Amino acid sequence: MSASSPLDHAYAVILAGGYGERFWPLSTMARPKQLLSLLSERTMLEMAFDRLDGLVPHERVLVLTSADLVEPTIATAPDLRPENVIGEPMRRDTAAAVALAAAVVKARDPEGVFCILTADHVMGDLDLFRDTIRTGLEVAANNDVLVTIGITPAHPSTAFGYVETGDPFDAQNADTSKIPFHRVARFVEKPDRETAEGYLATGRFWWNSGMFVWSADSVTASFAAHRPELAEFINELVPFVDTDGFADALAAGFEPLEKISIDYALMEKADNIVMAEGSFSWDDVGSWPEVANHLPSDEAGNVTRGDVTVLDSANNIVLSDGRLTAIIGIEDLVVVHADGATLICPKDRAQDVKKIVTELRANPDHQNLL
Amino acid sequence: MSASSPLDHAYAVILAGGYGERFWPLSTMARPKQLLSLLSERTMLEMAFDRLDGLVPHERVLVLTSADLVEPTIATAPDLRPENVIGEPMRRDTAAAVALAAAVVKARDPEGVFCILTADHVMGDLDLFRDTIRTGLEVAANNDVLVTIGITPAHPSTAFGYVETGDPFDAQNADTSKIPFHRVARFVEKPDRETAEGYLATGRFWWNSGMFVWSADSVTASFAAHRPELAEFINELVPFVDTDGFADALAAGFEPLEKISIDYALMEKADNIVMAEGSFSWDDVGSWPEVANHLPSDEAGNVTRGDVTVLDSANNIVLSDGRLTAIIGIEDLVVVHADGATLICPKDRAQDVKKIVTELRANPDHQNLL
Repeated sequence: MSASSPLDHAYAVILAGGYGERFWPLSTMARPKQLLSLLSERTMLEMAFDRLDGLVPHERVLVLTSADLVEPTIATAPDLRPENVIGEPMRRDTAAAVALAAAVVKARDPEGVFCILTADHVMGDLDLFRDTIRTGLEVAANNDVLVTIGITPAHPSTAFGYVETGDPFDAQNADTSKIPFHRVARFVEKPDRETAEGYLATGRFWWNSGMFVWSADSVTASFAAHRPELAEFINELVPFVDTDGFADALAAGFEPLEKISIDYALMEKADNIVMAEGSFSWDDVGSWPEVANHLPSDEAGNVTRGDVTVLDSANNIVLSDGRLTAIIGIEDLVVVHADGATLICPKDRAQDVKKIVTELRANPDHQNLL
Repeated sequence: MSASSPLDHAYAVILAGGYGERFWPLSTMARPKQLLSLLSERTMLEMAFDRLDGLVPHERVLVLTSADLVEPTIATAPDLRPENVIGEPMRRDTAAAVALAAAVVKARDPEGVFCILTADHVMGDLDLFRDTIRTGLEVAANNDVLVTIGITPAHPSTAFGYVETGDPFDAQNADTSKIPFHRVARFVEKPDRETAEGYLATGRFWWNSGMFVWSADSVTASFAAHRPELAEFINELVPFVDTDGFADALAAGFEPLEKISIDYALMEKADNIVMAEGSFSWDDVGSWPEVANHLPSDEAGNVTRGDVTVLDSANNIVLSDGRLTAIIGIEDLVVVHADGATLICPKDRAQDVKKIVTELRANPDHQNLL
């Protein structure tokens, strides 16, 4: 056990690497989802940053993003320390991102512990969120475990994976009286409705939030056991962190890494995983209907932004910045104007906006709209 | 019978007075439907003008429109003679418009005969259209009758009124061998489907096209019998036509006239009405779905203009000048972008675009979009 408080060694790592194609045309290559003000005046990334107030100081909040998004990220989120915005030279999924974060934390503080968060989430009860992460950091600092944050399921969602818990976990040198911890029995993929209802009935299942807490040492050791190339990558990169040679060393080490998620690489393999009960309100907002669930609507369920005139229409999402949109007699549609493009689709096709983006990428005339 | 050809005295009058609110936001107060290029590169008004080629010389084609549309009409349709674009100082429906046209024709040629056409129609078989109007002009010049053009019904439409015919009409001093004429038994309103099918089964019913042919004398005499104030208006206005006093005399005479359609004012009252069989293709295009019926579509029935990317969508109408519109999984919608506004509605609500325009008129922020 360290003599200092574990929070003195705490880092937060926000994964903000994707483009959020499902939010096109509002999201573009240069203005990805995490830099959009989807839920408030603040961008998704700023909201993720703000949530850490009083938990982790600004200089220890890292953001991992695509190399080409480093500049727009710094420009859009002025509270971030520029040296803490780290560009991934190519897309290598979340296991490699966690390893990269571990290397940076380890180099800056050999006793470092860090939480993995994303800019995709919307949360309420932020004091409880911070208590949960704080306790996770304390547990991770003083126990050789990988902590995952499970969300107390509000309903039998089929949109999330689940964590099945086993026995209570009795953490050493950590006060878990407010935030219960459990050993993890297994992770399960998104279930169908009936299965999800069965999960909830047992009382042993939580939503898999994709938020984790661990020490740099523990996660490196776990990589060494289950993905040795990622442990090697960490150890080889550490000496270059915060030096002029960092970008080259990162590019050389990152390129050969396999694209694999942290769930497949570690969470489904390691046997020292524990789950903290996350009882704060939480949602993953991956497409427009999920965002709209967290925005105010009119009496007919229409969520509108900008200049929208509504006649006999219900349950639509209409974003009309900079122009007037008039709708008559439509239901359950998503309408988004941005710059020189407009998207229209039913809510239940909002996932397929990605397909349009793929199609547009093939057309040279549309590059300025992507 | 006149010694000269009746075509030497022929005028064409195109009624182009409305704003076409159903085409908002493409149509606006300053850019009404008749000045839009809905069906071709030419505007609706220019298409109406072009159809008269070889039938009536340019200097005898009159356009009646709202006073505030005279300037944009002249600017948009350079083939029109400016002195032939006549502004109605206020809206007084079609009976008053016909009376105004009769006064202008009578003043310029006491033997004048004229056809009443509109810019709302789409037609094919234009040689047959011109033959029909030409024969109508000849019949109207040499017989004291009011000629209405009935359209041979292509299907039991519920969107048009009908003309029921009686005996064949044996015109004097006119060659009706190619274009049969009938006496008119009655005009009937838009029927329901079953009634329309019954009409077609009799072989005696034609669509009421709203196109008419008559001499200035005959129509004035008919007004004298059924709407004497309109005959008075004509006779009082004639001396002012093509003088500096015209605008004042028109305003003074027009203002007190009742708002009434030519159908109610004359056609349902007069007993000297005959119908010419119009066998050319014809449609009245009052809203987007009707326009789209006359435009090419993709294999899924989508009519698009401008930059439109379509995924899994059918039977939509999308006008996207100046921006990209991407649609996914939508059917039977109308989407129109123009300037700073976008309209979205199902095809079967296209009539209700007028309601949106009415609502927007009440909002000072939206005046620039109307």
